[in-house]
Amino acid sequence: MSDRPLSDVRAILFDTFGTVVDWRGSLIGELSAWGAARGITADWAGLIDAWRGAYAPSMDRVRRGELPWTILDDLHRATLERLVIQFGITGLGEAELDWINRGWHRLKPWSDSVAGLTRLKQHFIIAPLSNGNVSLLLNMAKAAGIPWDMICATELFGHYKPDPETYLGAAKLLGLAPQQVMMAAAHNGDLAAARACGLRTAFFARPTEYGPHQVRDFVADAPWDVIAADIEDLATRLGC
Amino acid sequence: MSDRPLSDVRAILFDTFGTVVDWRGSLIGELSAWGAARGITADWAGLIDAWRGAYAPSMDRVRRGELPWTILDDLHRATLERLVIQFGITGLGEAELDWINRGWHRLKPWSDSVAGLTRLKQHFIIAPLSNGNVSLLLNMAKAAGIPWDMICATELFGHYKPDPETYLGAAKLLGLAPQQVMMAAAHNGDLAAARACGLRTAFFARPTEYGPHQVRDFVADAPWDVIAADIEDLATRLGC
Repeated sequence: MSDRPLSDVRAILFDTFGTVVDWRGSLIGELSAWGAARGITADWAGLIDAWRGAYAPSMDRVRRGELPWTILDDLHRATLERLVIQFGITGLGEAELDWINRGWHRLKPWSDSVAGLTRLKQHFIIAPLSNGNVSLLLNMAKAAGIPWDMICATELFGHYKPDPETYLGAAKLLGLAPQQVMMAAAHNGDLAAARACGLRTAFFARPTEYGPHQVRDFVADAPWDVIAADIEDLATRLGC
Repeated sequence: MSDRPLSDVRAILFDTFGTVVDWRGSLIGELSAWGAARGITADWAGLIDAWRGAYAPSMDRVRRGELPWTILDDLHRATLERLVIQFGITGLGEAELDWINRGWHRLKPWSDSVAGLTRLKQHFIIAPLSNGNVSLLLNMAKAAGIPWDMICATELFGHYKPDPETYLGAAKLLGLAPQQVMMAAAHNGDLAAARACGLRTAFFARPTEYGPHQVRDFVADAPWDVIAADIEDLATRLGC
């Protein structure tokens, strides 16, 4: 752990899927309504859970060099094409598949996210550090009113989290030392990787992120620099 | 010229030095006051004009491969160290040189910039596409209240404008076709390079950018897609 004071922190990077936005609730809600309006019956919750289940393995294929650098939109699309067959959903054309895939650009924030980030932005540089590609994160921010100062997608570094190139690359782009940057996430693993690179860390739980399938990240499993209830509480704890 | 309608435009990229901010007025004003407070007499205007005069040649050294990729902060610093000697300014330590160099992070917007960008942000993705590095542009935006959605520094592409990799790299990051992106600049040359890559173009003059030394860019020298009076007028012409 750094012995520099927390008051040195100039920028806060936020994990996004699960930490700032509710991917599962957003996608299940949107697709269920979309299917109902078109008379398409399907296990939408099952499809979304399987889609997210393929997320880490698909990035691992890039990490191992089995795929060249591929942005998350394209990894998502390849998984989706497999899953619609597996879930017996037929008759979808290119426009429908593209619309479903871009559901990740339309995810909704948790109720505290925009208010908390708006407070933090007054005192800190705030940016996502997410495996979502730049356009995904930017379109999400525009639609949801998330007031980022900058979009630090891991796409900019050609590496997916938790590779150290992402945390160190973001600090370098911001012109800051790692100790001047805080990683905020609802995932202990993300914070462990950030801390190993010298970043400061903030945790808050999102215990409903995976719905009934959540098995981890209910509590902080290490003494992170800040442990908060949510992003509004993080703002309060940082004096904003 | 594209035959796609202007209504396809989703993002507007802004040149920054001279187009959004008044680098010359800002730096001369700040340094003159700083020097006066310290009893340092110098030809500050001359130093600033010489500093800017070294801008294009220093980037050309990177472009020709005489230097490896070097961010603008570091090009600025190397020039500054030469100029303080040339202008007979002595007794500056590391802290003073760093503070002067970071004057480029503190440039002030023209009077219409923030209001015009705030209107445009409601309808378009807005970002700088500047040869300033990410941290320079980000610190400038935080200090001046410039409401960028994203910081598209040419640093992200490892090329300086007007290399085509910068315009095409920005469109790709935004997930847009070149025709869906508009370059806005007070410099005809920047727009010519953007148009050659398929981007749409908007011009407005900043006739006092170079003070008494301005020799070009008083008017549009080609039929750009939009020719406006300033950024507020650009917002009006685009229906914002």
